Amino acid sequence: MRRPVIGVMGAGEPSAGNLTAARELGRLVAERGWVLLTGGRPEGVMGAASAGAKGVPGSLTLGILPGAGGGEGRDLDIAVFTGMGEARNMINVLSSDVIVACGVEGPGTVSEIALGLRAEKPVILLGASEPARALFQGIRGRSRLLHAGTPQQVVDLIQNELGIRRDSWRP
Amino acid sequence: MRRPVIGVMGAGEPSAGNLTAARELGRLVAERGWVLLTGGRPEGVMGAASAGAKGVPGSLTLGILPGAGGGEGRDLDIAVFTGMGEARNMINVLSSDVIVACGVEGPGTVSEIALGLRAEKPVILLGASEPARALFQGIRGRSRLLHAGTPQQVVDLIQNELGIRRDSWRP
Amino acid sequence: MRRPVIGVMGAGEPSAGNLTAARELGRLVAERGWVLLTGGRPEGVMGAASAGAKGVPGSLTLGILPGAGGGEGRDLDIAVFTGMGEARNMINVLSSDVIVACGVEGPGTVSEIALGLRAEKPVILLGASEPARALFQGIRGRSRLLHAGTPQQVVDLIQNELGIRRDSWRP
Amino acid sequence: MRRPVIGVMGAGEPSAGNLTAARELGRLVAERGWVLLTGGRPEGVMGAASAGAKGVPGSLTLGILPGAGGGEGRDLDIAVFTGMGEARNMINVLSSDVIVACGVEGPGTVSEIALGLRAEKPVILLGASEPARALFQGIRGRSRLLHAGTPQQVVDLIQNELGIRRDSWRP
Repeated sequence: MRRPVIGVMGAGEPSAGNLTAARELGRLVAERGWVLLTGGRPEGVMGAASAGAKGVPGSLTLGILPGAGGGEGRDLDIAVFTGMGEARNMINVLSSDVIVACGVEGPGTVSEIALGLRAEKPVILLGASEPARALFQGIRGRSRLLHAGTPQQVVDLIQNELGIRRDSWRP
Repeated sequence: MRRPVIGVMGAGEPSAGNLTAARELGRLVAERGWVLLTGGRPEGVMGAASAGAKGVPGSLTLGILPGAGGGEGRDLDIAVFTGMGEARNMINVLSSDVIVACGVEGPGTVSEIALGLRAEKPVILLGASEPARALFQGIRGRSRLLHAGTPQQVVDLIQNELGIRRDSWRP
Repeated sequence: MRRPVIGVMGAGEPSAGNLTAARELGRLVAERGWVLLTGGRPEGVMGAASAGAKGVPGSLTLGILPGAGGGEGRDLDIAVFTGMGEARNMINVLSSDVIVACGVEGPGTVSEIALGLRAEKPVILLGASEPARALFQGIRGRSRLLHAGTPQQVVDLIQNELGIRRDSWRP
Repeated sequence: MRRPVIGVMGAGEPSAGNLTAARELGRLVAERGWVLLTGGRPEGVMGAASAGAKGVPGSLTLGILPGAGGGEGRDLDIAVFTGMGEARNMINVLSSDVIVACGVEGPGTVSEIALGLRAEKPVILLGASEPARALFQGIRGRSRLLHAGTPQQVVDLIQNELGIRRDSWRP
């Protein structure tokens, strides 16, 4: 049976605070036994979250890459090459049980939040600004849209609000 | 040589004002000889813009559909069936010389604006709210992001700011 | 109402015979008022079919490109940029009412024939070899799979066997 | 660092022989520590290969699904939902270091072999008929195209001809 997948999205060139948060979030996700899904490239939130996860024994990191081969970060266990460019953002969303935006700093992240809401997936915004919160609140439709201030709050929301349990899977 | 393509994006269930604006915008785009691109379904902004365009002799309407066949609006000359669901939003963006958001009322439209900025395409927001303008201004990167209050202003911007000329093409 | 679309597929570096056939086929498709769909690049069967069509007044040529922008042939009226590489072959298939393989000379064409049969679209093979005919006959499932020896036979099959009528559309 | 991925493709309703071969192949791939990639659905070659792999402790199975959610086989550790239908076949190909066709019984498999050759990936045909071998030999271009009679021969080719080593990864 497939394992829970937490998608962590964010900028390729994030602020220092979001970079630190991404690494911490990757670690916390992996400690709960969940698969970490990212956009798969080495830089920014993607790379930091994967690096944080791979510090945890038994972690599993999955990257959904825009390119047709190569360019993946070194902390991925599995790289899925789509060759679709940013259209792969939809696959990130559909393949995640929960979408976490680690900051709202670039258009790629905004597209993933919006596509997540469009697909009626639960979305957690970590450290979003007021305009971002207002915009997404206005278009969320029937999706769960949650807000967090720290990575720890994100995983608490995933467990307590969204009911995704720790996973003890080992391959 | 390929013709200029103007992509008009908007909600499936828009406000009355945006529905009226979409029809007007479709007409104005067609009068200038540009191809109108929409998401191809019959409802909302997509359907109204296509209907507005088809009232103009010599107009050409192109729909990029989420489904694998069927479900297209009746005012399309050409239907491209992607079978990709909302991932087709990226194709809408890449195939448009200019992206016009006719209102910012749903997550699909937000994703298209964001993907447009990500692809460094010119984007025009028609009647956007303050939070929407603030959010997109903050993530626009190197893209042109323009604002308009009426359909007429949209086509004036396309001609005068973006330099896309009237097209006298007839097949 | 959308117009009939005939997809003409073939190699980027075809034999001289298939190149000549592609140009002739493009012309015959356009003369019947059908939209010609190709993979959109300038070379090989794609380019020759589009060139043949554009010699006909009132013709309409549509290219579904693998890239995210640029690289289209000069004989396209409309270029749809997918940014998906060869995954766009599925869109070619889904958007065509009939798929015509102008020779079976490369893997891209084979993928399009196979995806056409998978989608239960009518497929016409022009000048296919015996192994190709045998292979596709064995996997055609419920699809119509027809064979032709000349471009004229292809359009006759489209009209008489598949019942697609001449189209008098003008935009 | 990402792990080797072996893609096993085949029909949803295969012959009894190919079903047995798929299960055996899944087991042998997993025993070598390679990730097994399939189309992810429960039936046919996809389901049998995954079931074979999951009988091996430490195995890891990845499915690339056509749908937007649900419909995955129970023997998948990770499900990637593409929402793209058969266009996801290209992702299967790009994400596999080697593509193995377990029989050539349907159009989906033919499309994956062809897309694999188009992407210049190594392709192994297990138990292919003469027309299939002849057709693919004629269009293989610069790709490696290998033939095997048994699942054991497939993994021997992967190790000895393609140089992919046993992998001792544990998450």
